[in-house]
Amino acid sequence: MSDETDNSGLWYREDFGDSVSYLNRVEKVYFSGKSKFQNIDIVELGFLGKTLFLDSKIQSAQIDEHIYHEALVHPALLLHPEPKKVLIIGGGEGATLREVLKYKDLDKAVMVDIDGELVEYCKEYMPEWSDGAYDDPRAELIIGDAKEYIEKDGEKFDVIISDLTEPLEEGPSVFLFTREFYNKIYERLNNHGIFVAQSGSAFTGIAQFMATNYKTLGKVFPEVIPYQIFIFSFSMMWGFNLALKGLNFKNELKKVNKRLTDKAINLKHLDYNLIESMTVLSKELKKELEKGIISTDDSPFFWTL
Amino acid sequence: MSDETDNSGLWYREDFGDSVSYLNRVEKVYFSGKSKFQNIDIVELGFLGKTLFLDSKIQSAQIDEHIYHEALVHPALLLHPEPKKVLIIGGGEGATLREVLKYKDLDKAVMVDIDGELVEYCKEYMPEWSDGAYDDPRAELIIGDAKEYIEKDGEKFDVIISDLTEPLEEGPSVFLFTREFYNKIYERLNNHGIFVAQSGSAFTGIAQFMATNYKTLGKVFPEVIPYQIFIFSFSMMWGFNLALKGLNFKNELKKVNKRLTDKAINLKHLDYNLIESMTVLSKELKKELEKGIISTDDSPFFWTL
Amino acid sequence: MSDETDNSGLWYREDFGDSVSYLNRVEKVYFSGKSKFQNIDIVELGFLGKTLFLDSKIQSAQIDEHIYHEALVHPALLLHPEPKKVLIIGGGEGATLREVLKYKDLDKAVMVDIDGELVEYCKEYMPEWSDGAYDDPRAELIIGDAKEYIEKDGEKFDVIISDLTEPLEEGPSVFLFTREFYNKIYERLNNHGIFVAQSGSAFTGIAQFMATNYKTLGKVFPEVIPYQIFIFSFSMMWGFNLALKGLNFKNELKKVNKRLTDKAINLKHLDYNLIESMTVLSKELKKELEKGIISTDDSPFFWTL
Amino acid sequence: MSDETDNSGLWYREDFGDSVSYLNRVEKVYFSGKSKFQNIDIVELGFLGKTLFLDSKIQSAQIDEHIYHEALVHPALLLHPEPKKVLIIGGGEGATLREVLKYKDLDKAVMVDIDGELVEYCKEYMPEWSDGAYDDPRAELIIGDAKEYIEKDGEKFDVIISDLTEPLEEGPSVFLFTREFYNKIYERLNNHGIFVAQSGSAFTGIAQFMATNYKTLGKVFPEVIPYQIFIFSFSMMWGFNLALKGLNFKNELKKVNKRLTDKAINLKHLDYNLIESMTVLSKELKKELEKGIISTDDSPFFWTL
Repeated sequence: MSDETDNSGLWYREDFGDSVSYLNRVEKVYFSGKSKFQNIDIVELGFLGKTLFLDSKIQSAQIDEHIYHEALVHPALLLHPEPKKVLIIGGGEGATLREVLKYKDLDKAVMVDIDGELVEYCKEYMPEWSDGAYDDPRAELIIGDAKEYIEKDGEKFDVIISDLTEPLEEGPSVFLFTREFYNKIYERLNNHGIFVAQSGSAFTGIAQFMATNYKTLGKVFPEVIPYQIFIFSFSMMWGFNLALKGLNFKNELKKVNKRLTDKAINLKHLDYNLIESMTVLSKELKKELEKGIISTDDSPFFWTL
Repeated sequence: MSDETDNSGLWYREDFGDSVSYLNRVEKVYFSGKSKFQNIDIVELGFLGKTLFLDSKIQSAQIDEHIYHEALVHPALLLHPEPKKVLIIGGGEGATLREVLKYKDLDKAVMVDIDGELVEYCKEYMPEWSDGAYDDPRAELIIGDAKEYIEKDGEKFDVIISDLTEPLEEGPSVFLFTREFYNKIYERLNNHGIFVAQSGSAFTGIAQFMATNYKTLGKVFPEVIPYQIFIFSFSMMWGFNLALKGLNFKNELKKVNKRLTDKAINLKHLDYNLIESMTVLSKELKKELEKGIISTDDSPFFWTL
Repeated sequence: MSDETDNSGLWYREDFGDSVSYLNRVEKVYFSGKSKFQNIDIVELGFLGKTLFLDSKIQSAQIDEHIYHEALVHPALLLHPEPKKVLIIGGGEGATLREVLKYKDLDKAVMVDIDGELVEYCKEYMPEWSDGAYDDPRAELIIGDAKEYIEKDGEKFDVIISDLTEPLEEGPSVFLFTREFYNKIYERLNNHGIFVAQSGSAFTGIAQFMATNYKTLGKVFPEVIPYQIFIFSFSMMWGFNLALKGLNFKNELKKVNKRLTDKAINLKHLDYNLIESMTVLSKELKKELEKGIISTDDSPFFWTL
Repeated sequence: MSDETDNSGLWYREDFGDSVSYLNRVEKVYFSGKSKFQNIDIVELGFLGKTLFLDSKIQSAQIDEHIYHEALVHPALLLHPEPKKVLIIGGGEGATLREVLKYKDLDKAVMVDIDGELVEYCKEYMPEWSDGAYDDPRAELIIGDAKEYIEKDGEKFDVIISDLTEPLEEGPSVFLFTREFYNKIYERLNNHGIFVAQSGSAFTGIAQFMATNYKTLGKVFPEVIPYQIFIFSFSMMWGFNLALKGLNFKNELKKVNKRLTDKAINLKHLDYNLIESMTVLSKELKKELEKGIISTDDSPFFWTL
C-alpha cells in the first residue's frame, strides 16, 4: 500500500449508543490524562483542529468553538440592557469568559469551575480559547463547586451562564440542572437578570436534555427562550435555553441590533438576524420541547443516548 | 465479552477526506448492487433507519428525509403564487415528487432521472419515499438525461427543482450545474418561474459547492436566495439555492404563511417562521458564498472534500 | 477527496472485547439474514474473499478455508489405518465433508448439523466449500441435534470430527463439549477410533477453550494430542484436540507419510512434516493447556473474550 | 448509553491496503512524536499492552515481544557452537540486545541503529524491552548508518542479526536487504558465522518480502533456512531467514538441545522442539519462497501491501 492512502495512526473514536462510531484522525496529542474529576484529552484532529474531550466526549474544537461560545454568550449579554456582573458556571476552557469580557462596560466576570486541573491544562495547551482572559482584572476565577457557590454567596449577577457538561448519571453536573438549583440561580440574579444554559442536542428524538432543561426552567422563570445553532464539530444542531427574570424577550430583542453596534462587539459568526433566527425552531422540535419533564433533586434527569 | 456489548456485524463506513471515518451499524441489507450509472446500497441503519447510498455517499435516511425534501420543495412552491407545472431533475427516491404532489392545484409534475434502475429499486425497497407518487395521474416519469431533456423539449414550467448528486469529477451531474445549463433552465421557466437546487454542505470552509452554485445562478437569474437546514443524517447543515426569474423574494415571502394555510399543505418540519429563518445565514457563510466561482461548460466546478 | 482514496461503503466489523475492532471491506453481500438458530452473513471481503459469519463471528474465508479444513480433517484420517466410517458434527459449510470424501476407501460419511437453513444457504452461496460433496453417494446429511444423534443411534465410527461453533453461553453448542458428551462420543467410536475437535484460539492467554477441551477429553480418552495451525482470516493460531481411543499417536504418526502417498490425498497446505510440526507447541501454550478445567453438564465451560 | 458500553476515546488504527482497518484501544499515550527518521508512537493498548509504532506500523507489543525476540535471536545463537561477537543491525527497542546478552560466554554485542532518538525514547518509555541491556559492559551501542558501518569497519562477527523495518520505498532500510549489502555482511562474518533477518509476513500471498530475502540471501550464502513463528500482535505468522556461511544446519540443529541446557538460557516461549518446528513450512509457503526475486542495489525490492 502506498503511503498516500495509508490512514494508520492515532484516531479519536466517539461511540454514540450501539449504532454509531465516529473516528477523527489525531495529528498530535497535546495532553491525555486525568484530573481529579474527569479524563481529559487535548488533541489535534485532522479536520477539526485542536479539540478538547472530557470523559471522551467532545467539548470544543478549534474549527468552531467560536460559534458555540458566541451562541452561548451573546444573546444573553445583548438582551440585557447593561450587564455589569456576569457569572459563568463551568466553562473550563476559558472561551466563555473570553466572550463575556468583550463587553467593555462590564465590571466583573466570575467563573466557577470545579476542575482546577482542567483549567490549568486548557490554559497551557489551548491558550487560544481563553486568549488572555484570566489576566483581565475584571475576571475572577474560583475553583470550586458551583452548587455550593450559588447556595452560599450573596452577590447578585446580571447574567449567569451555565456552560456545563451534560448531566450524566455518574457525572458531577446532575444537580446543576434541577428545579431546586434553578431556584437558587433565580435568587442570585438581579431583577433584570438573564440566565442561559447550554442544553445539548437540538435534534428531534434526541433533545430530551434540551426539553427537560426548557421545562424545568419554565417552573422557575416567567419566560424561557429555547434556541439552537449548528455546531459542526458536534455533528449536531445544538440547543440552549435562555431564561428571563424580569425582562421581556421581544422588547429586548428589538434593541439587540443597536446594542451590537453601540458596544462594537466583534463577532465572527453571529449578527442580529442570526441571533433572531436561532430562536426559530422546527415544528418537530417545538413539540418535543413540550414533552420535557421537570428535573428535581429528588428525581433528577440523566442524559443517556 | 458478553453479547450485550458486542458490536460485530455489518457497518456502513463513510470516509470524508483522510481524517474522518463515520460508521453506522447496518441492521439489514435491502439491496446492494449496481445500476448502469452508480453503486446503490439500500440498508437499514441502527439509528438513521432505512438509508440510501449512491456510490457510497448518503442520499437520504428515513429519520429525516422529510426534512430534506420539505426544505427542497416547499419554499419554491410556496413562493410561487400558483404552481401548475413542476419539473424535477433527479430525485430518484421519489420523495421530491411526493412533496410536489401535495399541491392540489398542480396540473403536472414531470420527473426526469437518468437512472431507471435506481428509480425501480427505490420503488421496491423504499416505497415510503415515493409513497404512491408515481401512481398519481399528474405525475410523469421520464428516464433519461436531464441535460438533453432541458435542451430539446419546449414545454415551460413554473418551478424546476434540481435534486442531483454533487458534481463529482467523474460523476454524471457535472454539467447540470453550469452557467450554460442554467441558461437553458431559465428559458424553460415561465416568467414567474422559480428554480431551486440542493447545493451541498452549508458549513463555512466546505461550502464551495453551495458558493459556486450561488454565484453561477447569479449570472443567470436576477435574484438568488441561498438557504439552509440541518440534516442530521448528513451530520451537516445543508445548503440550497433558490433563483427567481420574475418574482421578488420579499414580496412573495410575505404571502407564504397565507398560502400554506389556504392550500392546507401538511408539513411535519417546516412552518412559515422556519422557512423565513432558513434564509438567514451566518456572517461567515455569507462571506464564503461571495467567494464562489462560476461553473461553466468549459471550466466546470467539481466537488471534492 | 479523490475516489482513489475513498474507502466508504459496507464493511464488516468484528469487535473483540472492548479493546479491538477489526474492519474488513465488504465487496458484495451474498446473503444476510437469519436461520432458526443464528444470524448468517455470507459476504465477499476485500482481502479474504467470500466469507461466512455466524452471529457475526467469522467461520471461514475463501482465502484459507482449505488450511482450516485440511488441518481439522487429515491428521485424524491419516492417523487412522483404514477409516471406513466418519461422522462430522456441525460443519455446515460442507468443506469438512469435502475433505473427508477425499479418502477413496471410505464407505460412509455422515454429517449432522442442526441448522438445515445454514446448510442450504452455504450450498447456494458458497458452493466452493462443499464442492459437490453432498452429491457423493457415500455422504449422508442429517439435519438434527448432534447430541440426540450421538446419544440415540447405535452405529459406530472410525473417526468423529467436531466442527462446531465455540461454546458461547447462550449458544447451541455448550453441551457438545462436556465430559458427558465425550463419554458418548467415546462409545460411538470403534476400538481404533479417533476423535478430533476444533478448539478455538491457541494463543497464550486466550486459549481457555482449547485448554478446557484438552483436559476434558483427557478425562475420557487415554491419549489427547493438541495441535495448532495459523489461520490468517482469524488473525490467529488456531487450536485442535485429537483424541485416540485405542491407537498410539507416535506409532501411527510414523505411518502418516506413507499413507499420504499410498492414498494419494491431494492437499494444498499440509504435508507430513507440517502435520508433525503442528503438534509442537510453545512452552507457554503447554503450560496454559495444563490449566484447563473440566467441562461437565452440571458446570459447562462457556467461551468469552 | 451507559458508560460500560462506551468505547469512545483514543484508538490506534492500522490500515492494511484498502480493505482492512484494525483498531486497538489506546489506554495511555507514553510518547507520540517524531525523530529525525520516523514517527514514533509508544502507547498502552487495551489488549496488547505497551506497544511501539514506527511510521504507524506496529513494531512490538508487550504481550508478545518476547516471542518475536526469542525467535529472532536464539536459533542463530544456538546453532552457532560458540558465539563470542554478535552484531545487531537495527533493534532500536533494545530487546534483541537483551536476548543476545543472555549468552554468558559472549564477549561483545554491538548494536548499530540509525535513530538515536528512538533508542532514547525506548529506554525512557519502554525500559522493559532493553531491561538494562545497555548497561552491560559487553554491549556497545553505535548510533549510525548500518550500511556505512558494515562497509567500512573491519571487525568480524560470529552472528549478525538484522532487526530492521520493512524495505518501504521511501524508507531507510531498502538498501539493507540487497545482494550487495549481503555480500558485505558475508565478509563481516567469521567462517562459521550465521546471519539472521526478520523478513516480514510468512502467509502465502503476502510473503514477497520473506521470499525475496530468502532468494537474495541464497545468492550469497551456501545455506539459507527460512522459518516462522506466530506473532499475535501482528495478527500474523512472521518470517525470518537464517543464513549459514560455513556451518551445516542439520548438523548444528542436533546440538541445539544440549547447548540450550548447557548454557542455561532462560526462554519463555521457545524450546528445542519449537525451534525445530519453526523451520517446517507449509507446501504453499515453500512454493511462494521459490518465487522470490533477487533484490539488488540497482533494482531493490520494495515492500507494499
